[in-house]
Formats: sequence, C-alpha cells, structure tokens
Amino acid sequence: MRAIRHTLRIALATAVLSIPAVASAQPAPLPSWNQNAVKEAILAFVEATTREGSPGFVPRAERIAVFDNDGTLWVEQPMYVQLAFALDRVKALAPQHPEWKSKPPFSAVLAGDLKALAASGEKGIVELVMATHAGMSTEEFAKIVTAWLDGSRHPRFQRPYTEVVYQPMLELLAYLRQKGFKTYIVSGGGIDFMRPFTEKVYGVPPEQVVGSSIETQYEISNGKPVLMRLPKIAFIDDKAGKPVGIERFIGRRPLLAFGNSDGDQQMLEWTAAGRGSRLMGLVHHTDEKREYAYDRSSDFGRLDKALDEALAKGWLVVDMKRDWKKVFAFEP
Amino acid sequence: MRAIRHTLRIALATAVLSIPAVASAQPAPLPSWNQNAVKEAILAFVEATTREGSPGFVPRAERIAVFDNDGTLWVEQPMYVQLAFALDRVKALAPQHPEWKSKPPFSAVLAGDLKALAASGEKGIVELVMATHAGMSTEEFAKIVTAWLDGSRHPRFQRPYTEVVYQPMLELLAYLRQKGFKTYIVSGGGIDFMRPFTEKVYGVPPEQVVGSSIETQYEISNGKPVLMRLPKIAFIDDKAGKPVGIERFIGRRPLLAFGNSDGDQQMLEWTAAGRGSRLMGLVHHTDEKREYAYDRSSDFGRLDKALDEALAKGWLVVDMKRDWKKVFAFEP
Repeated sequence: MRAIRHTLRIALATAVLSIPAVASAQPAPLPSWNQNAVKEAILAFVEATTREGSPGFVPRAERIAVFDNDGTLWVEQPMYVQLAFALDRVKALAPQHPEWKSKPPFSAVLAGDLKALAASGEKGIVELVMATHAGMSTEEFAKIVTAWLDGSRHPRFQRPYTEVVYQPMLELLAYLRQKGFKTYIVSGGGIDFMRPFTEKVYGVPPEQVVGSSIETQYEISNGKPVLMRLPKIAFIDDKAGKPVGIERFIGRRPLLAFGNSDGDQQMLEWTAAGRGSRLMGLVHHTDEKREYAYDRSSDFGRLDKALDEALAKGWLVVDMKRDWKKVFAFEP
Repeated sequence: MRAIRHTLRIALATAVLSIPAVASAQPAPLPSWNQNAVKEAILAFVEATTREGSPGFVPRAERIAVFDNDGTLWVEQPMYVQLAFALDRVKALAPQHPEWKSKPPFSAVLAGDLKALAASGEKGIVELVMATHAGMSTEEFAKIVTAWLDGSRHPRFQRPYTEVVYQPMLELLAYLRQKGFKTYIVSGGGIDFMRPFTEKVYGVPPEQVVGSSIETQYEISNGKPVLMRLPKIAFIDDKAGKPVGIERFIGRRPLLAFGNSDGDQQMLEWTAAGRGSRLMGLVHHTDEKREYAYDRSSDFGRLDKALDEALAKGWLVVDMKRDWKKVFAFEP
C-alpha cells in the first residue's frame, strides 16, 4: 500500500512537470495503453526513479525490471506454448518410439486425449518434458525450438506464437530500457526454450533470461565439446523459486516486477520488500473478445492468491480490457 | 592453434594501421603489460573482433569475456581467500559451538593444525563451508563477507584482499569493456562470496558473476520475505561445471576466456570450440618475488593438464614475470 501511495503521490507531483518534457523530445511512451491512472502510475514511477535529483532516484545499475513470460508477455491459452511444443514433439518422435502407442502419458498425447493427459498429472507432464527436451546437445535443442516456433501457429489467432505477444508489454519493455532499466524475463518456463527467441521478440538477450532448467553435462563428442541435456530437473523457477532464481542469476532485488498468476506472487513480494519505492504489477486477463478472460479457476496461469494480495497491498492490477488500447500488433 | 595463428596473422595486418589510431585518441591500453608478443596478441584480437569492417568483426551483443577469479584476478596463495574467510569464521563462531573443540575438522582449525585440516579432505572442507556459509539470510551473509573483507589482511602483503588483485588484469577488464565486451566472472568460488566486492574492485556487477552456490529457500520471517541459505550444495562451478555455468547463466559462448588452473580447462575448451576467432588465456604464476611461482604441483590453483593443452593448442600463456610490468597497484 505504501509503495503505491508513494507512487501516486509522486505522480501528482511530477506529472505536470516531467511528462510533457519527455513528450516533446520523443514520441509519447506506451501508445497502446489507454490514458488512465494505470498508465499514469507506470509513467510516474519510472520518472520518479530515473530523473536526476528526484527524491526517489535510483542509480542506473540498480534499475532491474523482471517480467514473467507466459500470460505476461505472450499468450498462455489454450495451453502453455511450451506444452504445445512438447505435444508436437511427442507426435514428431512417435515413429521412433512404437512403444508410446500404449504407454501413458504418450498414448494420451498420440490419441489427442487431453483429458487422459491431464489425469496423468504433473508426473505425466514431467515425463513428456524429459522425453522431448533431453537427450540432445544444447545447440541441437535450440535448433529444434527455433524450427518449431517458425513452423507452428497459435490455434485461435493463426499466427506464429512469437507474434501472439502483448504489444503494450513490448512498449513497456522498450520504455524501461530507454530509461536505463535492465529488463529480465523470470519465467517458470524452460530457460532454453525461451532464449532462442527472446532477443528478437522482446529485446531481452539470452543472459537476461531466468527460467527453469534441466541438468546439462559437458562431454567431448567426436573431438568437439558439447553440453548434453539430461533428463533431470535442475531448477524450477516458479512460485517460491522465482526469488531464488532472481537472487542466483541477477543478485539484485528488482525495482519493478510484472507477472500475471499465482506463480508470480513470491516474486512480487520479494520485489515489494525492497527499500524505497518499487512497482509490482499483475496483468489481469479480462478480455475474452480480444484475448482470453480467466483468473481464479484457470488451469494455466491461475490468478487467485496473488490477486488478493495485489488488491490488499495496492499493487498495480492491469485490466487488459480497460487499460490496453491494443492487445496484439496484428490487430486491425 | 588455428585461433592463435589467425590472431597473429591479424596482428601483423592490423598493428600498424589500428593501434596508433587508438593510441592517439586515448591513453594506450594495458600500460602494466610489457610491450611484447603477448600484449600484441591481446590488442590484435580485440581490434580484429571489434573494428567495423574487419573480417573477424563480432557484434557488440556477442562480445562475452569470462574470467576465472582465484589466481586469475586476485591472489589464491597461500590459500584461497574464501578458505581464509571460512577459517576465520570458524574461530569467530567457536564460542557458540563448544563441541567444535573436539570435533574434526573444526578442532583442526581451532588448533591451527592445517595439516590435520588437509587430512579431512574435501568432506572436511565442505563441512566447514556449510557451518560458516549457511544458516543465515542472503542479506546477512553479504554483510558478514563485507565486514570480513574490510577487516582482514593478506598474510604476506598486509593489504586488504581486495587490493591484492592483478593490476594488468584490471586493465584488461577495463579495456574489454571500453571495446564493448561484457565482462563476466566465472569462478569455482562462491557466487555470494564474490558479489559483495566484484563491482567495486573489478567493475563487474553482481549479475555478471557466475560461481558455485548453495541452495536458498524463500521464507517469510517476521512478516518480511527472506532467502535463507541452506547447508546444501546447489551447483559447483568448477572444471566441467564451468561450461555448464556459462550456458546456464549467460546462454552465449564466450569470445574470450581467461583462467589460470586446471579448473579452467573445460571453460577454455568450450570457448575455443566456438566459430571464428576466439582468445583463450592462462595466467601462469612464475614470479616468486613479486607474487608466487607455482603450477603443476600446487594445492591451490594447480596448473598441469590445462598448461599442456594450452601449449599444444597455442592458447595464450601469460608469463607473469615476463609479461607484467607491474603485478599490484600498490607496488612501489
């Protein structure tokens, strides 16, 4: 509550002075955000933390901004993109694994029986991931991911997944970088599934991507060093794992954090507990027409406890329908 | 061999053209390096990879340079600095652990019996590390490290450890950054032991430090989120672990890598296996008078197999005595 109150206070104090000054120098930031209190809170926070002489000024080196990926930067419905990848890989690899026809959870995937797949639970999903994400070198895996992203389409929008990304969030990433922030992705998704596209799509280089990972092993193969991907989980960057991942990879507490689900709750709490003013944001999926509407009972990207905490503590809740002028760049 | 031959060829081609041009614009780089083939190879490599239009030009985003810490950037004799820290912490904590007086390896430390300590082997060292590095929050640990670094002195040089750093390597780090390289530390040492000082001492920010780590756990303590340090190893960033750490934290292959021991061998191999020209370097400790002379039989920073590979493959071997005009900034 204090953080947002502080933010709004600064907004009132600085809006008249600083925002027009910026607008005259370059195009107004965040054009796909509607002009309302949410957009103003973001602009005011960034101005207050980056304008020299401001009481809330934060040195450039400490301007760390972290973003969840699934549901925060790109679409996570009707299922996580990485799960769609795993299912497609099972189908592609099935001819080499005749035993999969009668072996759950593979049999469920091959029969297109998503209900049976769901019944296989987390154990089943982990089995699918290991069968499709391990057993090759890191370089081979990156090529497989890139080829799949190039060749597949989102079932509803009929666009490559890398186009089904939120235009307002791309603008926020770019605006923050322009203001000296270092933008990171901190996702429950696989780090090696994201790195092949994050630089091109989000402007986030591989070294600023934090995610879940499996073990790799250094080997010499035909006289050449390779890192082989092993079917063993190394780190799960979700829920209470997100602050752990942030501390391990970045070693600084974020100044700004954006998520959209209960998987981001601890990351936002960890951010909020830092000294001075911090910005914690949630993307609330409220727009069935342009995207999807879901929260407390969704299988993917459930937003329940984190929404309660956000409302109680005055974190920024972005209402997609109300706050975004445009959701995707490809909209008419 | 190819890499160094390529480097030297470029050196001949570019030395006359490009180095004087740089020299006229700003102070000549690497002033504490003697003017010889080693210095020239470094300058030529950096020029060839960073000068626009050069056939070996590498885009700024891909200019990743990785440095080992112990024995490459700061002194690792008569023992690793972090081991000196652990021994001092055992002594400081002993009053709260009366049982340590008779319990190896703690009893060996308290009796000052380094021979008995060595006999406790890796298991003993891990026990010491866990007793001194775990059981507190990440913030508390950073404060303990900072206070210790401020208060302790290197036994021979009688300076804070953060001053017993190699001046020529500081110059190399600064020169690389000036040329658009992102400089990383990739060390077997503890990531949380290094981060409190690397920015100030080396100009390397916390998010560019890769190292060994123990597990941490997110907890709410007195209503405040903390990351508690657990007595369990998470990752050993040494030997074959270094390429693994590089891939996990950075996700790009280095263009340049510097180490000084067998612990760096795989990191240099991984770097060398990249496309195009790469620079692999070893600091060879040959100067008993100004620093220390050790290699194939040293307990700390043993350099044996990596030296053979470097000599066989034509990697750059920096002879401290021959190549460095000055070792420490505090030298007369």
